[in-house]
Amino acid sequence: MPSSPASESVAVSDIETAAERLRGVAVRTPLLASGAIDSRTGGTILVKAEMLQRTGSFKLRGAYNRVAAIDPQQRRRGVVAYSSGNHAQGVAAAAGMLGVPATIVMPADAPAAKLDGTRALGADVVLYDRATGDREAIAAEIANDRGATLIPPFDDPHVIAGQGTVGLEIADQADARGVVFDAVLVPCSGGGLVSGIATVLSDRMPEAKIYTVEPEGFDDTARSLAAGAVVRNEPGRTSICDGLLLPVPGTLTLPINQTLLAGGLAVDDDAVAEAMAAAFRHLKVVAEPSGAVALAAALTGTFDCCGKTVCVVCSGGNVDGRTFFDLVGPYL
Amino acid sequence: MPSSPASESVAVSDIETAAERLRGVAVRTPLLASGAIDSRTGGTILVKAEMLQRTGSFKLRGAYNRVAAIDPQQRRRGVVAYSSGNHAQGVAAAAGMLGVPATIVMPADAPAAKLDGTRALGADVVLYDRATGDREAIAAEIANDRGATLIPPFDDPHVIAGQGTVGLEIADQADARGVVFDAVLVPCSGGGLVSGIATVLSDRMPEAKIYTVEPEGFDDTARSLAAGAVVRNEPGRTSICDGLLLPVPGTLTLPINQTLLAGGLAVDDDAVAEAMAAAFRHLKVVAEPSGAVALAAALTGTFDCCGKTVCVVCSGGNVDGRTFFDLVGPYL
Repeated sequence: MPSSPASESVAVSDIETAAERLRGVAVRTPLLASGAIDSRTGGTILVKAEMLQRTGSFKLRGAYNRVAAIDPQQRRRGVVAYSSGNHAQGVAAAAGMLGVPATIVMPADAPAAKLDGTRALGADVVLYDRATGDREAIAAEIANDRGATLIPPFDDPHVIAGQGTVGLEIADQADARGVVFDAVLVPCSGGGLVSGIATVLSDRMPEAKIYTVEPEGFDDTARSLAAGAVVRNEPGRTSICDGLLLPVPGTLTLPINQTLLAGGLAVDDDAVAEAMAAAFRHLKVVAEPSGAVALAAALTGTFDCCGKTVCVVCSGGNVDGRTFFDLVGPYL
Repeated sequence: MPSSPASESVAVSDIETAAERLRGVAVRTPLLASGAIDSRTGGTILVKAEMLQRTGSFKLRGAYNRVAAIDPQQRRRGVVAYSSGNHAQGVAAAAGMLGVPATIVMPADAPAAKLDGTRALGADVVLYDRATGDREAIAAEIANDRGATLIPPFDDPHVIAGQGTVGLEIADQADARGVVFDAVLVPCSGGGLVSGIATVLSDRMPEAKIYTVEPEGFDDTARSLAAGAVVRNEPGRTSICDGLLLPVPGTLTLPINQTLLAGGLAVDDDAVAEAMAAAFRHLKVVAEPSGAVALAAALTGTFDCCGKTVCVVCSGGNVDGRTFFDLVGPYL
């Protein structure tokens, strides 16, 4: 049997173990459907609604699986993470549930809601200056000083396995409906979510073609997949998708994605805002910009859903109310 | 064994039959949790998110169960319903899925979105003048002329049994979490949803006290339960809860509710708007005003959740985007 990079770093059994750990902890998020979205795309679209996950994004899954894997002796020394967004809240919540002290390194100019949210989950927040500080170095130093465990946002087998439980649920929910997906569209930044989903579905639903979706100008994974080598984003671009702005794919995730994915897509900010409005109107859920890129790819025809059965992953809903209204207002 | 009005009109087995019919049709909506909501109420709150149901409200369940119960010969003559809101879309969608022609009697001044939504689901919409027309009489006449089947919004055993599948899911999901609810709070107008839920939970979770929640001035069920007799709402009041404005409890539902409920609560419009904002911010879901009354009762302390484990039913999310923003804006 040929071995693949996927099987070397994360196995389906690792994801099944993660699912056991997450039982009763993570929300089994539903697949949502809308006749209006089906009519518009000409396909059958089922939206995996991970904004309904605890902490408002899928990130809880990987964080919890990583923290739960630490042995009891080591747990007492705590965990450290760096993040301005959903990973911060995922790690803070997971550590809180497991009784592990958590320190999160966050930029001093992060939105007050995210700082407060992370503190409210019981984490100790250490601020740094985004212009002059190096968050990875700061987090590594704290972890080193305390003997604490660093929880990486994606380049970690336990984190990938935790995110992969989204894929396990997609497979189970599709089975229950008697559906086989032609394609699965997944928001992508570091690539932890899509690599975990692809690991499961390559086993459980090998017919499904899996695609990343990224913001235009930040489609480093799409271009790396196409080039067969690591391609960085050009500097100087901006996007409303604040969670998908990393310059380069993950070192553990890219090899998995190179083996298992069909390719990568990119969408512009207007398409993202319109997709947020469609999720609000037709699915009754709040998608943050980064969470809505895959739905945007389906609605704009960037991925042609016509005649296909497509799973669209919406990865999170942590967006400030005013920002949400400013973005979706023009589409209501 | 003593017989109760509940057991005479709707049995748990009827609700189990409805659940079989709805398998693969209705979304098994999740129970959502938020640390922020728990902190604020001092309790453990799990929100049954029925705005995620197909058509944006629980109404699909009862409508589908009622239409599916019609024999094949009779189905061809079609179904008729009157509704300005969620029941219209529930019946239209259910009939569409079952290949049954549907006619919905709606007020001519209903929001364009609801008229268009009902037509988009394949129903024939008949308009009437809210000031001069009698929708029940119009619907009855159409049904009579065509030999079609009238689908009542709540006073029907199949409709109640369909809505009761919400209760079956609550019981199953609570079992899976190892949770027993101290209380279940349910939005109420005609009383179909709460009577169905109470029928299941009186059997599956008899410890749970079940309460209706209504808008202030429209708490006919609360006052009827307290009085032990039918009490009508006084005319002249208004509320943003456009789905909960019926003047009097149902004739089939009230006896069930008198037997099985612990009582009824009422909330004002400001509390409802704030609950809509809390659902948006903390749960990432869109609640319509009528759908948010039970959450409002929990958040305001109208029902004291402190130290309790409480299930809050959010019944729907069909609200115009502009209306939503106008209502929740002050709370963001």
